[in-house]
Amino acid sequence: MYRNTKVLDVHGHVSVPQEANAPLVFMMGSNTPFAGLSGTAVSEEDFRAAAARHVSYLDERAIDVQVIGPRPFLMLGWMEDHLLPAWTSYVNDMIHQQCVFFPDRFLGACQLPQVSDAPDTTHCLAELDRCVRDHGFVAAYVSPDPAGRRTTPGMHEPYWFPLYERCQELDLPLIVHGTNSLDRRFRVVPHNYQLGFLTEQYLAGQFLSHGDVFERFPALRIVVCHCGGALNRFIPTDPHIAQKDLSANLFYDTCGYDEIFLSAAIRQRGVSQMCFGTEAPGSGRAVRPETGRTCDDLVPVIDSFDFLSEQDKITIFHENPARVVPGLAKHAASAGA
Amino acid sequence: MYRNTKVLDVHGHVSVPQEANAPLVFMMGSNTPFAGLSGTAVSEEDFRAAAARHVSYLDERAIDVQVIGPRPFLMLGWMEDHLLPAWTSYVNDMIHQQCVFFPDRFLGACQLPQVSDAPDTTHCLAELDRCVRDHGFVAAYVSPDPAGRRTTPGMHEPYWFPLYERCQELDLPLIVHGTNSLDRRFRVVPHNYQLGFLTEQYLAGQFLSHGDVFERFPALRIVVCHCGGALNRFIPTDPHIAQKDLSANLFYDTCGYDEIFLSAAIRQRGVSQMCFGTEAPGSGRAVRPETGRTCDDLVPVIDSFDFLSEQDKITIFHENPARVVPGLAKHAASAGA
Amino acid sequence: MYRNTKVLDVHGHVSVPQEANAPLVFMMGSNTPFAGLSGTAVSEEDFRAAAARHVSYLDERAIDVQVIGPRPFLMLGWMEDHLLPAWTSYVNDMIHQQCVFFPDRFLGACQLPQVSDAPDTTHCLAELDRCVRDHGFVAAYVSPDPAGRRTTPGMHEPYWFPLYERCQELDLPLIVHGTNSLDRRFRVVPHNYQLGFLTEQYLAGQFLSHGDVFERFPALRIVVCHCGGALNRFIPTDPHIAQKDLSANLFYDTCGYDEIFLSAAIRQRGVSQMCFGTEAPGSGRAVRPETGRTCDDLVPVIDSFDFLSEQDKITIFHENPARVVPGLAKHAASAGA
Amino acid sequence: MYRNTKVLDVHGHVSVPQEANAPLVFMMGSNTPFAGLSGTAVSEEDFRAAAARHVSYLDERAIDVQVIGPRPFLMLGWMEDHLLPAWTSYVNDMIHQQCVFFPDRFLGACQLPQVSDAPDTTHCLAELDRCVRDHGFVAAYVSPDPAGRRTTPGMHEPYWFPLYERCQELDLPLIVHGTNSLDRRFRVVPHNYQLGFLTEQYLAGQFLSHGDVFERFPALRIVVCHCGGALNRFIPTDPHIAQKDLSANLFYDTCGYDEIFLSAAIRQRGVSQMCFGTEAPGSGRAVRPETGRTCDDLVPVIDSFDFLSEQDKITIFHENPARVVPGLAKHAASAGA
Amino acid sequence: MYRNTKVLDVHGHVSVPQEANAPLVFMMGSNTPFAGLSGTAVSEEDFRAAAARHVSYLDERAIDVQVIGPRPFLMLGWMEDHLLPAWTSYVNDMIHQQCVFFPDRFLGACQLPQVSDAPDTTHCLAELDRCVRDHGFVAAYVSPDPAGRRTTPGMHEPYWFPLYERCQELDLPLIVHGTNSLDRRFRVVPHNYQLGFLTEQYLAGQFLSHGDVFERFPALRIVVCHCGGALNRFIPTDPHIAQKDLSANLFYDTCGYDEIFLSAAIRQRGVSQMCFGTEAPGSGRAVRPETGRTCDDLVPVIDSFDFLSEQDKITIFHENPARVVPGLAKHAASAGA
Amino acid sequence: MYRNTKVLDVHGHVSVPQEANAPLVFMMGSNTPFAGLSGTAVSEEDFRAAAARHVSYLDERAIDVQVIGPRPFLMLGWMEDHLLPAWTSYVNDMIHQQCVFFPDRFLGACQLPQVSDAPDTTHCLAELDRCVRDHGFVAAYVSPDPAGRRTTPGMHEPYWFPLYERCQELDLPLIVHGTNSLDRRFRVVPHNYQLGFLTEQYLAGQFLSHGDVFERFPALRIVVCHCGGALNRFIPTDPHIAQKDLSANLFYDTCGYDEIFLSAAIRQRGVSQMCFGTEAPGSGRAVRPETGRTCDDLVPVIDSFDFLSEQDKITIFHENPARVVPGLAKHAASAGA
Repeated sequence: MYRNTKVLDVHGHVSVPQEANAPLVFMMGSNTPFAGLSGTAVSEEDFRAAAARHVSYLDERAIDVQVIGPRPFLMLGWMEDHLLPAWTSYVNDMIHQQCVFFPDRFLGACQLPQVSDAPDTTHCLAELDRCVRDHGFVAAYVSPDPAGRRTTPGMHEPYWFPLYERCQELDLPLIVHGTNSLDRRFRVVPHNYQLGFLTEQYLAGQFLSHGDVFERFPALRIVVCHCGGALNRFIPTDPHIAQKDLSANLFYDTCGYDEIFLSAAIRQRGVSQMCFGTEAPGSGRAVRPETGRTCDDLVPVIDSFDFLSEQDKITIFHENPARVVPGLAKHAASAGA
Repeated sequence: MYRNTKVLDVHGHVSVPQEANAPLVFMMGSNTPFAGLSGTAVSEEDFRAAAARHVSYLDERAIDVQVIGPRPFLMLGWMEDHLLPAWTSYVNDMIHQQCVFFPDRFLGACQLPQVSDAPDTTHCLAELDRCVRDHGFVAAYVSPDPAGRRTTPGMHEPYWFPLYERCQELDLPLIVHGTNSLDRRFRVVPHNYQLGFLTEQYLAGQFLSHGDVFERFPALRIVVCHCGGALNRFIPTDPHIAQKDLSANLFYDTCGYDEIFLSAAIRQRGVSQMCFGTEAPGSGRAVRPETGRTCDDLVPVIDSFDFLSEQDKITIFHENPARVVPGLAKHAASAGA
Repeated sequence: MYRNTKVLDVHGHVSVPQEANAPLVFMMGSNTPFAGLSGTAVSEEDFRAAAARHVSYLDERAIDVQVIGPRPFLMLGWMEDHLLPAWTSYVNDMIHQQCVFFPDRFLGACQLPQVSDAPDTTHCLAELDRCVRDHGFVAAYVSPDPAGRRTTPGMHEPYWFPLYERCQELDLPLIVHGTNSLDRRFRVVPHNYQLGFLTEQYLAGQFLSHGDVFERFPALRIVVCHCGGALNRFIPTDPHIAQKDLSANLFYDTCGYDEIFLSAAIRQRGVSQMCFGTEAPGSGRAVRPETGRTCDDLVPVIDSFDFLSEQDKITIFHENPARVVPGLAKHAASAGA
Repeated sequence: MYRNTKVLDVHGHVSVPQEANAPLVFMMGSNTPFAGLSGTAVSEEDFRAAAARHVSYLDERAIDVQVIGPRPFLMLGWMEDHLLPAWTSYVNDMIHQQCVFFPDRFLGACQLPQVSDAPDTTHCLAELDRCVRDHGFVAAYVSPDPAGRRTTPGMHEPYWFPLYERCQELDLPLIVHGTNSLDRRFRVVPHNYQLGFLTEQYLAGQFLSHGDVFERFPALRIVVCHCGGALNRFIPTDPHIAQKDLSANLFYDTCGYDEIFLSAAIRQRGVSQMCFGTEAPGSGRAVRPETGRTCDDLVPVIDSFDFLSEQDKITIFHENPARVVPGLAKHAASAGA
Repeated sequence: MYRNTKVLDVHGHVSVPQEANAPLVFMMGSNTPFAGLSGTAVSEEDFRAAAARHVSYLDERAIDVQVIGPRPFLMLGWMEDHLLPAWTSYVNDMIHQQCVFFPDRFLGACQLPQVSDAPDTTHCLAELDRCVRDHGFVAAYVSPDPAGRRTTPGMHEPYWFPLYERCQELDLPLIVHGTNSLDRRFRVVPHNYQLGFLTEQYLAGQFLSHGDVFERFPALRIVVCHCGGALNRFIPTDPHIAQKDLSANLFYDTCGYDEIFLSAAIRQRGVSQMCFGTEAPGSGRAVRPETGRTCDDLVPVIDSFDFLSEQDKITIFHENPARVVPGLAKHAASAGA
Repeated sequence: MYRNTKVLDVHGHVSVPQEANAPLVFMMGSNTPFAGLSGTAVSEEDFRAAAARHVSYLDERAIDVQVIGPRPFLMLGWMEDHLLPAWTSYVNDMIHQQCVFFPDRFLGACQLPQVSDAPDTTHCLAELDRCVRDHGFVAAYVSPDPAGRRTTPGMHEPYWFPLYERCQELDLPLIVHGTNSLDRRFRVVPHNYQLGFLTEQYLAGQFLSHGDVFERFPALRIVVCHCGGALNRFIPTDPHIAQKDLSANLFYDTCGYDEIFLSAAIRQRGVSQMCFGTEAPGSGRAVRPETGRTCDDLVPVIDSFDFLSEQDKITIFHENPARVVPGLAKHAASAGA
């Protein structure tokens, strides 16, 4: 809660015992898309405990409700493509399970079985529909380049339109998050998916803003994670930046942990485009020396920004998330907030 | 025990809780070769329990000592090659741990970090040396085609010679076992690595017998698993079959579960070339309707073959394994067998 | 004849003077698909003599009628694809000529101008139709991987359905036989097409049995040559083997020369699925030391199998071939057998 | 001048009449590496006029001396590689000519004939040596990915070491600047080389900081342009950021035009690592609405940053450039500054 | 003029100041297809002066009217394909401008934005239509292999039919001229596009004469430049040469400068198929030692051929060009010739 | 004989019964390089008869001695490379046999087992040496692009130097003749190797004349067949033609059948560079309507050229062949000519 307003976090990832991912190894070894992929030895109790730890983590950071999707670095979109649907649906079922455990705290965002070299994104619609219809998910994650070889069409290309059309119909936002990259150069960097996150999220924002996606799909809303990946070095009126109004369509989360970076992002993107997002718990576990608290404890950080008014902060913490993700608004409403 | 002779099994795979493989998902997701790869949440107790179940499984099948290597279908040699050494050494450490738990029952055979498109097999020697020197392993597994795209040089080609030379020096046998295949056609078959096992093991046997490997490395011993993959349709004197004496070099295990197949294999290969091997527990869990026992309970099956003399059976159960795998002989000796 | 029953052989290949293949060299050199490809200098007399030698060869082996197709190792499906139709039709015309020379002894099975990377098998239908309509052929050969680079779709894939549909309409069986392989590793083995025969025939059987081809084409009959390439190491009830009734659709010939292998094949496949086939004359010219007769003299071999009843043998020698290849039945009937 | 201190700009590009690039079209059309490439119809007078306009541009922005290199978006490193040396030497000669015209104002930095798939950077040394020896150049530009297909080895890889070694010997800094990208997705963005600049400069910084280049070449100094491409979202002590002292080796220029971006960059990188750089004239021609002056007029912008002390500003404007580029220091000294 | 007959030249290329091509460098550097591509600093005056020099050049060579197209070696059809339309339309506009400057002397032939791997030539029609409709062009240039890697379909293949159909409708001839080649072997030869001109023009003539293009498009007329590239070593009745009447469709220009070559070409092709063409000014600037005049001064050369009658010469100089290029006939007519 | 001078023909191909090539089909089918490749059923008598027909053919055309090499269109250099040595040595042995049959009339030129993607031509030397040492061959054929995909290094590249060096040592000329091409476009043309002959022979001449081969190997002599493939359209002093003296090194044969073409070739190349060559019998079987004799009856054709003096003709018919091919000179000498 922030001043009696619910803090809504658009950027969270499912929490499961590490062991819950073990079936993927068996599936890849078997090269067989096990329907159900159930074989996990993890008990419901252990799943519940992991979810409960996640809730505590949110509690400690004053986050009321969080949209949880897949762990992007585990999407592994380069795997043999016939395995992707089974892996995706297994992950989505784990996300759903976590939401069911703590329905007041979590809302689901689905992984999609994205195949980079498919003719278009039609192959993703069945799983999207299943997650919305059966699990009540409120958003969908997409990777700009699931196979990690930069061969996926840019997010402005017709390849993506079937997905955009469905999301517009469903009034469901897309959450753009990088996944794995197979660029051989990256190997020198530990956890190098972070390099791909930055570059691909930045590029996705550029393709979306320079292309005509939002002319075609005016009601489509897209959130680019991690403040959009990278910031612009050009001034806002420079023609290097798309000179058009994207305010109803293109949003960014606040998931930058360095205060210098985050404050620059909010000021550059504008309060109206920023949705609170923390990825808690995730890549923000480093501890700020000055506070002794983990980086992803972002409510006090944003609260401390004196270039933001209180209303700005409420806009970021609550109103934007609720506007961009109608499921969050509905949830907040139904919870009597 | 078979008639007071220890039954020595050359073909076993490490038994760990499924969850022990979960770190691989994290490593692939991180695209980072974690040294140690320890992060597993599996307790030593759980590891020990898995090993103990394995021991019971052997007990129920009258197997005294088993050489255990990696699970071939989990070798995943197609993974990003910079990850292979970490995965390999993690697997080998689990194999070693299981041997340490039950030193009377298990001897280790190592996985190697095989890269199909390396200039040769020199890159495998460090891990081989480590396993022999530090863990006392007695054999090494090799996949004829680790990357699963049939691009690995044939087992008769100079690519393999550094490994052969080291094994000859160490008096250590190689165990040839198929691993994963990425042939797209295979997808229609569940657990389709079995198709690759058969074809690649058969081909390896052909390349080794028609090539000049054993002229170059006369003391090298190689065991081809699953009876060699496939049997020959030609008579022994047909020139389609290599007309030379391979009896000191090329061996096969008995790991065929169908009695028709296994008896044909023993008769075609000859008793002198057959080493007892069961893969217990592994792919032999189907239950024979006529006995109600799993297929991999091979001691009674072989014992029932009336075309074999008692000495033949002892040769297969004990003498050949001990001859081919000196570590088994030493172990048997030290155990006072 | 076997006990007054005609011995019907489903697996024979056309016999022509070696020189009859010379025009292919000119066609490949010219890179021009000569219609007719006639230019051969081989006289009809020489062709007839070759056919007559083939008849004698059958006589000496008690074979009454044989279905003759192309020589698989000369199908060379990797050639420039615009040349394939001319080569194929030339071969089929030679097959037909041989049938015409000895209509009581030979029935034709056609080669098809298979192109691995065509969109589907529609391109094969015209030649199939021509051979059936004009030449009265009774079966068709197919290679599971004509271009020899494992890029052909698996035999369970839609690529094959146009051919299956036509064969079902025509009540004409397909004979699955491996052809050439360009796997570089094979080079160490002389006559290495044999390696491809084994692996590709085995794989074809697996794809066909695990896929849904026979649900789609319930009247389609397919014979996999050389006993199916490789035998199964699993027991019949093991789920690694497709657990469904393929008895009306999937057949194997008896063309395994090693008695151990052949008897295992018959026992594993079952008498009901085995069609007599010898490839005489072909790869069975090695002489059995114990009899002094060539390996492909299979009537006495099968007759000697005491696990088979006399009726079993008649089923294999006559009834199954006649059932699977209706043209053989018709022929036998018309011949007053 | 800034408070009686010379303003030294590390990031400028050669100014020539557009027509001076026309010979490249002829060279590409001829597919012939014309030595000399002189054929240009541009007169020395026109060249001098272009240089003089450049000087005025600097004057209006209070820049005293500027290091000028090639125009990165015109490096076109994807061209047929045999043409690169001629193009490169032509560009370097134009840079030199501009320095000769105004020796008090310009110092040269060379283009290198970088070939992405060469075995290493040895092929760049001759031109580097020529420019230093004959033209007195003080720095060298490198593109992290000249061919624009992300196939160049990462800047931490041995491919780069010959160049690093020579630069260390020469005490000459490398200036890392993105060039052209051929990523098809970029096409939707006008002047899309800017996307490549950002991503490749950011990645270069990551590879350099996580790799061991500066352990190997402790005296090597590298300046990454445009503030390093992208900023970090992690806090400085987070292990995602290389935790080592790079202060003597890795520098960034100030060439970010958005004040939010630039101030964040200076604060994140630290004053000690920032070298004044403007690219004036270049991509900073957009006019700030609030001042009516072009973006690249950065002296007043930086002067306005109240988080910087006057000494900080002198460090950025003068001391860091002079320290990183010894040629600038020498020049300033000889000019009596 | 030749004996009071206008000399009509079908083979000329646009003359512009070299600097007029400079915008291409910027477009390639920007990777952005600038509509208009105007940015050139070349003044209309300079353009006019270049055109005037071209007129004088024609005057000195007795050429009255010339069809001018693009400079083939500057077509650079290998460039990023999204840039081709802008480059093409820029070139065509320069051609048009030259025609407008001297409407009595020049008629336009357009460049087309040919993409080798497009599904067919439909993508070229819009620019063709624009040039005919808006600029009154009378012919179109095509490169048999614009991308220079020999991957374009042969000129007899359906890929080309949309273009052929449109040209037949418009009664507009196609001028076949080689462009750039990227064959790495060519690099040893300066101006190596000439090698590609010869080989590709020769091949185009072969494909067109052996294929069925003119059966499909009987009114289509095609001129192959440089006398068709190479001459035939076979006699006219040899079946290696297409034995059919191509006289209404397939023409050649006279643009061979060596008298031996040119006279052989005219005699081999026949007067009826030869259209006067000089490429003046272009590759014919070498000076004949015996006359002191440039090679491309072809009127006196042809006039000197005593195997030609005066009518033959008029046929070549005037009648054939007028017949093949109706725009030339119309132009001549309107000019009162 | 031409006026009492022996007519020496540098361009002939071995004559064998078509059936003699049949073993190649078996070798390709077997994918096995049969040493000896003898299996041919062609009798020595038939071989001798074919050779005798060849002799008569020469007699009828007044040719005294002919250098015979392989049939270029049957070199099939695209075949699996491990088969090339066996095919090559089989062909060379047939050439030798023909020389032995008629030692007064034939001298051998060898085929080489050229592999386009070998590191260099060292792999050809053993067969060259064998043919010279054991068979007394006097020349060697080379294809500029044996694999027919234009991937062979140009004839000026270091790839070729080992072969050039050996030929210089042996004082043995190379005969450059095109072979097969796999350019898909060629398929529309029957016997389309002729297209490759023309283009590759022309290109080879260009590479050799513009490169520095003859500076490196000043005593090397090369004959390019079919008058060099294509003629030059430039005048001799044009810089498009290499301006250097190649008269001691680069020669052409007279094998152009069209009189227009052949006379142009002789005049363009110069008498000093032309060696009599007919390819009789080969591609010159078309009958000249005006004489009723086949095209390859070139002695009367050349004799009829009135631009040649009698001495010129003797130079072409005898002196040049003898100078370029010392084996011919020696042969003529020993024969008392």
